[in-house]
Amino acid sequence: MKVRFEPFGVEIEAQAGQKLLDAALEAGVHINASCGGEGVCGKCRVIVEQGVVDGGLSEKISPEDTAAGVRLACQSAINEDVIVRVPVESALDKAGLKALAAGAAQTATLIGAEDLKEQGRFEPALAKVTVSAEPPTLEDNRNDVARLLAALKEAGESHFVFDFEAIRDLPEAWREVDWQVTTTIMRPVDLAKGRNHVIRVEPGDTSGRNLAVAIDLGTTTIWAQLIDLHSGEILGTEGDFNAQIGYGEDVISRIVYAGKPGGLKRLQEAAAGSVNDVLKALARRTKVELSEISLATMAGNTTMTQLFLGVEPKYLRMEPYVPSAAYYPPVKASDFGLSLPDHVSTLIFPAVASYVGGDVVAGIMGVGMHTDERLTLFIDLGTNGEVVVGNKDWMACAAASAGPAFEGGGIKFGMRASKGAIENFSVDPFSAEPAIITVGRTKPKGICGSGLIAMVASLLMAGIIDQRGKFKLEHPSDRLRQGEDGPEYVIAWAENTAIDRDITLTEVDVDNLMRAKGAMYAAYMTLLEGVGLTIHDLERVILAGGFGQSINLERAILIGLMPELPLERFTFIGNGSLLGSRLVAMSNPLRAEVSGIVDQMTNFELSVAPGYMDNYTGSLFLPHTEANTLFPEVYQRLAEAQAALKAAG
Amino acid sequence: MKVRFEPFGVEIEAQAGQKLLDAALEAGVHINASCGGEGVCGKCRVIVEQGVVDGGLSEKISPEDTAAGVRLACQSAINEDVIVRVPVESALDKAGLKALAAGAAQTATLIGAEDLKEQGRFEPALAKVTVSAEPPTLEDNRNDVARLLAALKEAGESHFVFDFEAIRDLPEAWREVDWQVTTTIMRPVDLAKGRNHVIRVEPGDTSGRNLAVAIDLGTTTIWAQLIDLHSGEILGTEGDFNAQIGYGEDVISRIVYAGKPGGLKRLQEAAAGSVNDVLKALARRTKVELSEISLATMAGNTTMTQLFLGVEPKYLRMEPYVPSAAYYPPVKASDFGLSLPDHVSTLIFPAVASYVGGDVVAGIMGVGMHTDERLTLFIDLGTNGEVVVGNKDWMACAAASAGPAFEGGGIKFGMRASKGAIENFSVDPFSAEPAIITVGRTKPKGICGSGLIAMVASLLMAGIIDQRGKFKLEHPSDRLRQGEDGPEYVIAWAENTAIDRDITLTEVDVDNLMRAKGAMYAAYMTLLEGVGLTIHDLERVILAGGFGQSINLERAILIGLMPELPLERFTFIGNGSLLGSRLVAMSNPLRAEVSGIVDQMTNFELSVAPGYMDNYTGSLFLPHTEANTLFPEVYQRLAEAQAALKAAG
Repeated sequence: MKVRFEPFGVEIEAQAGQKLLDAALEAGVHINASCGGEGVCGKCRVIVEQGVVDGGLSEKISPEDTAAGVRLACQSAINEDVIVRVPVESALDKAGLKALAAGAAQTATLIGAEDLKEQGRFEPALAKVTVSAEPPTLEDNRNDVARLLAALKEAGESHFVFDFEAIRDLPEAWREVDWQVTTTIMRPVDLAKGRNHVIRVEPGDTSGRNLAVAIDLGTTTIWAQLIDLHSGEILGTEGDFNAQIGYGEDVISRIVYAGKPGGLKRLQEAAAGSVNDVLKALARRTKVELSEISLATMAGNTTMTQLFLGVEPKYLRMEPYVPSAAYYPPVKASDFGLSLPDHVSTLIFPAVASYVGGDVVAGIMGVGMHTDERLTLFIDLGTNGEVVVGNKDWMACAAASAGPAFEGGGIKFGMRASKGAIENFSVDPFSAEPAIITVGRTKPKGICGSGLIAMVASLLMAGIIDQRGKFKLEHPSDRLRQGEDGPEYVIAWAENTAIDRDITLTEVDVDNLMRAKGAMYAAYMTLLEGVGLTIHDLERVILAGGFGQSINLERAILIGLMPELPLERFTFIGNGSLLGSRLVAMSNPLRAEVSGIVDQMTNFELSVAPGYMDNYTGSLFLPHTEANTLFPEVYQRLAEAQAALKAAG
Repeated sequence: MKVRFEPFGVEIEAQAGQKLLDAALEAGVHINASCGGEGVCGKCRVIVEQGVVDGGLSEKISPEDTAAGVRLACQSAINEDVIVRVPVESALDKAGLKALAAGAAQTATLIGAEDLKEQGRFEPALAKVTVSAEPPTLEDNRNDVARLLAALKEAGESHFVFDFEAIRDLPEAWREVDWQVTTTIMRPVDLAKGRNHVIRVEPGDTSGRNLAVAIDLGTTTIWAQLIDLHSGEILGTEGDFNAQIGYGEDVISRIVYAGKPGGLKRLQEAAAGSVNDVLKALARRTKVELSEISLATMAGNTTMTQLFLGVEPKYLRMEPYVPSAAYYPPVKASDFGLSLPDHVSTLIFPAVASYVGGDVVAGIMGVGMHTDERLTLFIDLGTNGEVVVGNKDWMACAAASAGPAFEGGGIKFGMRASKGAIENFSVDPFSAEPAIITVGRTKPKGICGSGLIAMVASLLMAGIIDQRGKFKLEHPSDRLRQGEDGPEYVIAWAENTAIDRDITLTEVDVDNLMRAKGAMYAAYMTLLEGVGLTIHDLERVILAGGFGQSINLERAILIGLMPELPLERFTFIGNGSLLGSRLVAMSNPLRAEVSGIVDQMTNFELSVAPGYMDNYTGSLFLPHTEANTLFPEVYQRLAEAQAALKAAG
């Protein structure tokens, strides 16, 4: 039977009983689905315009919407030809997200090839060496490899082992271009312990092209950079959604999906497919053939890494949260479905713990936290919240169970920072009328993380919500009302939106945000307290991650998400995962330091860390129950604003 | 169109234009074909009993035979349904060859596990170590690999790297049998330079089964032994033909075939298929599953090694005879089509030169020539003739271009030592009537190597051929006659044979044998002269190879194939390739010595070696032009025999 997805006009042949969500994935149509098809999140709303599906009803859909054909795609089974419309808020918006995220990716240039060269540490893991030899004679008929080794020795290279494929290709390579070959050499981290691996031989001189690709394997997006290993130049950067999104928006729902029959394999293929899409775009943009790439480096969180490698992820989610491994050996890119030549290895960043992964390690390496004397707080605010505290002598890390609020998860009208997302907001304390700015400056569809923070901060300063996050329903504006989920504030009336429904911020939303930011702040405090330090000792705060990029620091401090410190102590690095991934391709000395970072880091499971629960409870307040000491300036401003309101009111 | 092969009753659907030989190979019917389908050797005679084929005519087929439907299978194109009979002399005789060769394989037990244990060198390359651990807790949620490393350290094991697949399987393995796993560890040759590779993890305790398979990849036959790496016990030995035979009997014709489109791939698959057949037979015989095997070792000549690995072999054949490599890294058995689990590596014996391969290195290692003070001559008389001279301080080697005469090649009625082959012979000098003994004691089909040596030796002593190899046609017996190929001796009249034709020995055959043995003897002399030594300095002669096994030493000395030395200085080792292959699986110290052997050996290309041509010319005589000094005893016996004949005549 046929299913057509509008407004895309994509039609596919579906099997009887197949779920609409599955059919959409198969058709390459993205439908937001946060919960991995469990029917819990209610995000995968579609409108069945023609024909009838089985099921798909939910209490998350109002009676009017149900009558209008709205169903949950993950719960609707196909039994006849249908035409289905994917409403704007359920579809991914590539253009919008990419425009935004591109900024984040590009900021990840904190350290460049020039810096490495200055430090004498520009030593790519991969080298191409071209050598020539005299042709063999009956008096000197050494084997082809021996001849190559002798030529390499003359060129100052030694300590070799050959990959089988290089040996296999060598006889023809030597003879094709008059006894000149180019060897592609993968350097060991340490030549005293390892050996130079000849991974490829090519006829003639191909040493001009020495390319690597650095990959950031994110839960939501995948980014890749093409690097010229001769110059260190970044030839291009591309990104795209991780197609795994179709199977669940966060790592937990992906792990759940991986547990279904064939689930792990599908997730692996989805990730590899998305990486390939990015690589292809990158190749097109930079006019390079994928076959010219000789090395890949990859950083991702622990779940993304295990899913990409097809390693059972369920123990990451089950207490006591055990990853399969910290370190993986270099793996053959093509073994995992990447469209790269067979000789290309992928260097994978090691993980510290189930929820402190290679992306964090890459970021730490990228900013050089492990070599810096200053006491630094490293915060990665992406789909998950990871926190590292320390300096060159010690590092403590933890995953904050912040939940997905910063990316729109658990927020009634939450969405990612794509087109139509409210990203900035202010409110007039007297009329309660808002000013809103959306991504792409279009009619609003929902609220993204930065918008949420702006709202709560503004509404707090305006006294429309109090420090406990409760709404002041007695406010005269009709924007404040009792909604079906409790008290709420109407941000945009239906007629002004792109979704024809009132967009509101509910007390439940605020509560979710408070839990999220509270979890983060409690993590900072707990890690610092563990070594007898306090927030005031922090000399530097590094903000990594796509969301970190778009944060308004003052507001983030106001609500207690960021510690109250002088703004100049904060640094945004954007995509730290991509930064580290690129650096490791360009610098074997840095690559050598990676395992040191992992060994140096102590991971704390916050749920059992002493003091954490107290810190968390104290943080469930705007900005904090101890605002007078931890947030003295915010404390002061709030007091002044309340006084002003009282004076005016 | 249909082709039926009799007497096997095998029928297949062939394509128009397909050659009969190709169709036979496809049908699994073996037809001897020495020249790889070039139409040169004339061995692939078949009788077209019904229907007509295109071509297949040859001057090698007599007009009578042509009229009777005899054609060359390699030259006959199929154009309609045909029934083809494969005559006995054109078919392989599995049972006969296996019976014979089994002896050769089994003698390869010169050194056993007990000897290695006595020497403290029983250290298999592969170990299985079972460890247990406490389950993880929130306080100790190290990753699964870290937990395993800690447990292995407690068990006294360190210096590890993990294969990806072992990491992948570990989470489930740990949890399946209550936190007990068995790791399969591949030891490096030297732990100071390499690391212990964890190639597999299994739940629970599977350490009881630690199996390796040693493989001798011969040009004609493939042998394998299953070894218990705990005890060193040989659990079984099996052999079979190398199915590559269908594409040519010797290495040269295989290399030629490899140059045809798809040829190399087909040869690779044929070799892998034959190894698999042997492995399956071995598994069946020993009641072991192939999935229980964890290691493979393999020795073969340089051509067989390159063909098995799919490495272009043509430069082995083209002057200046350059192999691709001496050493190959351990390769994944399953990558090359072997029916072994994915984690199984194959250790491949290194080659010295194009015609001194891993089989010779394995034999040298097996007999310990590289550690022995005695000046030793090592002779591998298989399909090719390889010669090594030296002791623990130095070794020189060469390939003698002996040609395939010892295995029946280039001999009019030559055949391998299978059922019906004349393997022993004597002649009455007066009547010229022979006594013949065949393999399997059946009617003769042809002459194998040992029979050929026996004939030439007997006929020489009887004065029926002279020291130049010329036939005494004036002998009154009608067994001596002028045949179509010149002078010949009728060994068996048609009615007494299994092939209904007179079986003869021609002067051309004798000439071919003289060239073959001359090439061998000239090789011994040239290598010895190169270091200022002579035949008389030899303290030991080691004879390896299937043919070496069946040789009658006195006769081999009589015709000048073997040097004249006291018989007690000769040792037969049978299948040295299999011997070395097995030892290397059982002893890492021996494995470490292998590269020393290769580096120690100097290869001589005899065609350009000083003195070789003189030595060769001198050897084209029975036994030698300098018989009085090099073969004083033979010289004496021949003189006595001639005197006796003269006295009687």
